[in-house]
Amino acid sequence: MNNSFAQKIDENIARVADFPQQGIQYKDITTLFQNPELCGEITDTFAEFSRGKVDVVCGIESRGFLFGIMIAQKLNVPFVLIRKQGKLPPPTISQSYDLEYGSATIEVQPQYIHKGMRALIHDDVLATGGTAEASAALIEKCGGIVTQFSFIAELSFLNGREKLNKFTSEIQGLVSY
Amino acid sequence: MNNSFAQKIDENIARVADFPQQGIQYKDITTLFQNPELCGEITDTFAEFSRGKVDVVCGIESRGFLFGIMIAQKLNVPFVLIRKQGKLPPPTISQSYDLEYGSATIEVQPQYIHKGMRALIHDDVLATGGTAEASAALIEKCGGIVTQFSFIAELSFLNGREKLNKFTSEIQGLVSY
Repeated sequence: MNNSFAQKIDENIARVADFPQQGIQYKDITTLFQNPELCGEITDTFAEFSRGKVDVVCGIESRGFLFGIMIAQKLNVPFVLIRKQGKLPPPTISQSYDLEYGSATIEVQPQYIHKGMRALIHDDVLATGGTAEASAALIEKCGGIVTQFSFIAELSFLNGREKLNKFTSEIQGLVSY
Repeated sequence: MNNSFAQKIDENIARVADFPQQGIQYKDITTLFQNPELCGEITDTFAEFSRGKVDVVCGIESRGFLFGIMIAQKLNVPFVLIRKQGKLPPPTISQSYDLEYGSATIEVQPQYIHKGMRALIHDDVLATGGTAEASAALIEKCGGIVTQFSFIAELSFLNGREKLNKFTSEIQGLVSY
């Protein structure tokens, strides 16, 4: 990623103080969608990274759906939704993972993941990596192979990559904080 | 909408028995995303309907994000997320509406809706119209004008259009059930 492109993206991500809780400076990526030209460039950059390397794009609910579907369309491959428990119709395969307080469960429709399919896992932000790690475990449970991850922004100080390296070292983050 | 295109879409929407509850035949639109070429045609059809008629596309969480963002990109206009309460960072404007049992609240970031902006409200399925109606009320509360609605599928027997006609008669549904 060249620095001026990262800087342009960064300038289009709003900062919101004390959200979702006191003391946290939230990076609001919805501002990117106010700039259609930049969204086109971001999609192209994601697609370039994944071209020829994935057979399916898996987007994590719900902000991961936004660039996720556009990457899939650009690459002319299927798009699969990874959603919170109970949202997808049966049959589903699920994966639980620990949160700071409690746990969460995500699901996928296994009929869309064929044996040996190379999958990109896409989300908007890589934080602790818990959701992305669970998503990758879920896709592999269905017979897929996770060959890539991509994110708009990466909160490097949370070391999310450490949880993902066991699947693949191909991890794209357009902006790093 | 020509009939053969509607038929093609219909053939790519899976039926799931007894979801989300006993006796309901769920129309699963996630199957469409397994066919990238068809998704391109659907996006083009939505974009054709809205070209020159809207200044912003508002997508309803979370399946409305999928074609919503692609319509916005195709039209080169901003995309705005309509989400369930608590998901968007402040400032937000909210709108509550009645469900069959209880009520729900949706929110939008008002800084993205400028006075007089012509808005398309997009979602995957038009059922009773409650969420689309609340979304339109929300956008108008922010100063926008709802000039169009679009949906992949419309459950005509639920008469959702009756709730939307007070905003505009420009309502596109690609397939009707």
